[in-house]
Amino acid sequence: MDYQSYFRSRLTDLRGEGNYRVFAELQRDCGGFPAARHYAADGARDVTIWCSNDYLGMGQHPKVLAAMHAALDRCGAGAGGTRNISGTTHDHVLLENELADLHGKQAALLFTSGYVSNWAALGTLASQIPGCIVFSDALNHASMIEGIRHSRAQKVIWKHNDLDDLEAKLAAAPADAPKLIAFESVYSMDGDIAPIAEICDLADRYGAMTYLDEVHAVGLYGPRGGGVAEQEGLMHRLTVIEGTLGKAFGVVGGYIAASAELCDFVRSFASGFIFTTALPPAVAAGAAASVRHLKESAAEREMQRQRVAELRARLDALGIPHLPNPSHIIPVMVGDPVKCKFISDTLMNEFGIYIQPINYPTVPKGTERLRITPSPVHSAADIDRLAEALGELWMRCQIARRPMAAQ
Amino acid sequence: MDYQSYFRSRLTDLRGEGNYRVFAELQRDCGGFPAARHYAADGARDVTIWCSNDYLGMGQHPKVLAAMHAALDRCGAGAGGTRNISGTTHDHVLLENELADLHGKQAALLFTSGYVSNWAALGTLASQIPGCIVFSDALNHASMIEGIRHSRAQKVIWKHNDLDDLEAKLAAAPADAPKLIAFESVYSMDGDIAPIAEICDLADRYGAMTYLDEVHAVGLYGPRGGGVAEQEGLMHRLTVIEGTLGKAFGVVGGYIAASAELCDFVRSFASGFIFTTALPPAVAAGAAASVRHLKESAAEREMQRQRVAELRARLDALGIPHLPNPSHIIPVMVGDPVKCKFISDTLMNEFGIYIQPINYPTVPKGTERLRITPSPVHSAADIDRLAEALGELWMRCQIARRPMAAQ
Repeated sequence: MDYQSYFRSRLTDLRGEGNYRVFAELQRDCGGFPAARHYAADGARDVTIWCSNDYLGMGQHPKVLAAMHAALDRCGAGAGGTRNISGTTHDHVLLENELADLHGKQAALLFTSGYVSNWAALGTLASQIPGCIVFSDALNHASMIEGIRHSRAQKVIWKHNDLDDLEAKLAAAPADAPKLIAFESVYSMDGDIAPIAEICDLADRYGAMTYLDEVHAVGLYGPRGGGVAEQEGLMHRLTVIEGTLGKAFGVVGGYIAASAELCDFVRSFASGFIFTTALPPAVAAGAAASVRHLKESAAEREMQRQRVAELRARLDALGIPHLPNPSHIIPVMVGDPVKCKFISDTLMNEFGIYIQPINYPTVPKGTERLRITPSPVHSAADIDRLAEALGELWMRCQIARRPMAAQ
Repeated sequence: MDYQSYFRSRLTDLRGEGNYRVFAELQRDCGGFPAARHYAADGARDVTIWCSNDYLGMGQHPKVLAAMHAALDRCGAGAGGTRNISGTTHDHVLLENELADLHGKQAALLFTSGYVSNWAALGTLASQIPGCIVFSDALNHASMIEGIRHSRAQKVIWKHNDLDDLEAKLAAAPADAPKLIAFESVYSMDGDIAPIAEICDLADRYGAMTYLDEVHAVGLYGPRGGGVAEQEGLMHRLTVIEGTLGKAFGVVGGYIAASAELCDFVRSFASGFIFTTALPPAVAAGAAASVRHLKESAAEREMQRQRVAELRARLDALGIPHLPNPSHIIPVMVGDPVKCKFISDTLMNEFGIYIQPINYPTVPKGTERLRITPSPVHSAADIDRLAEALGELWMRCQIARRPMAAQ
């Protein structure tokens, strides 16, 4: 077989479908973020990033940077081994304690990424509990899907956020089978939020464990940044809360928080936890500083909410359609892959605004969008520039506006 | 089902089998490594680490730390997104160029860890090439095994480093089936090295791609640290070279180096690459500084070889059995799980020496060992203390010595 030709033909197919990804090469301006340099083929220029998952700008927070600088000088660059073979540092232990406390759980367990935490924790729970059936929300993240798939456990997909469908499927399963309901709080692409309390009610009724992915919520919701489950007073009802250190906390890494026994179980059996180099101590120290700060400070969350409301109001005034949801994610709907890509390219090249287009297969065809994530470090002037640019492009591309545009 | 009881009983089983892992909580002393603080239940004390995979001490190299400090101040803590959505930074691109150059390949692709690079790259190649058969060395790392398993491709396991067995199995497969031979250069637990040239010969003969894991070799072998394949002048014959930034390079992260098309193919189809937050720019900058330094400097590699030879000579003089191999890894064979754990505990508690015991299932029963990794930052005095401690413990535990002890 001519492998090179095969790779080329598959890549050509991707281009033909409009699904070939081109990465924007950036250099974030620490202290000036969302400002960044964009390295394009024809030179570098300044841009404002509007699609980052560093939702609160914690990646440039002085406390986070100070903790990382200090840890680098104290312990060096890497951990130097797996958690079992010389890679468990004091900073990892302190961070796990911080995360257990954040979610009101007995323990927490760190992974190298949120992806790996979902893949390894779900994969281990579902494969190591004989006969376990996983009830997975239809819109769960790729990392959850791959973890469940890897486990080879029976999987039952329930309609997104649909309690009736979930209940019907739980009721149809053998009463004595071990069950695990896997879902997210904030869904990344639509920004909608799961009915957590009602899902926990169903879990109680049918004897299921619950696994809640809060990666788009930790740091952002709840009085201490514990996520939507904290905001709604539900953390104690969830078996596992999974989160990331790479979005609102501004660094990198993932974790689960749960009972001591569950964390120890995953720690002891998860290949993706055991056989991998631990996160650098400086990453753990930076993340711990970020978590600690957001437990005490609500200022970032409040300012973010204000910026989200301001941008939504501006979009409304312009009649630019955006999906309503209760979260911090603003999906501006374009509904056409070519126009979506064109708008994104033009924003970057003419307006110095960077928003990655979100096309199929990440979202269904016909729902192509710009996913905008306002943060407390976006200024009122940044919002002005974004709204004006979108207004102009909506005119240029002749995309349908909402009726309220005429108001 | 009572999930908590189930977790407890499985953990009790693990303890009963002697397979329950207890992590040593450490704080590496940057600048003084292999010195570290060990946080034990009864207080903290100083120890010397002899089992780190920071093989060359690059985790505390001034160039690496300077690059990371500078990148933190320049770009902040995290990347803020996936590679596709605002997470590709200039530092990532520079590092990928550095790695492609290191291995003489057209391109390289970064992953969040070596584990993820194996899992995602092998998983993607094997699943996305229809009918692909993977020929996997029997001692391949867990990350390769899980990647192949995840792909659902047909897997053929060949006897470890056994060319006859590999050829027989290649010959038995359909001539026109796509084939991928997956193996490592330096095997971590025995420290033995694969016959790379002969495997490439077989690959040519049977039309197979080759996938070589060099995680225990990059930075350590070859005139520029390109690994065993560089040392043997074979890099151009391998389809994919996989490496890590978390061992000899001292930071964290993994990568593949290959043709531009292959890297683009994996980049475009690997879930574990696409749907995960990119490494922090400071990690990329630190790793790039480490790779660059080790391309130019052979001093660390030479000093490591000297330390390995010195320790082996001391062990020989004491008659302490160690597995012969051509690598930097010294497996000191204990052959009994209880004694292995006892020696490790006593080294830590009485002698201030940390070497994690390696028991089943990481190695076969009866081959329990201390896996020792001398580095250029271990001093002659460190070697003296280790040899004396091992000599005393071998006497105390009444473990068989080699005949040469009497010499």
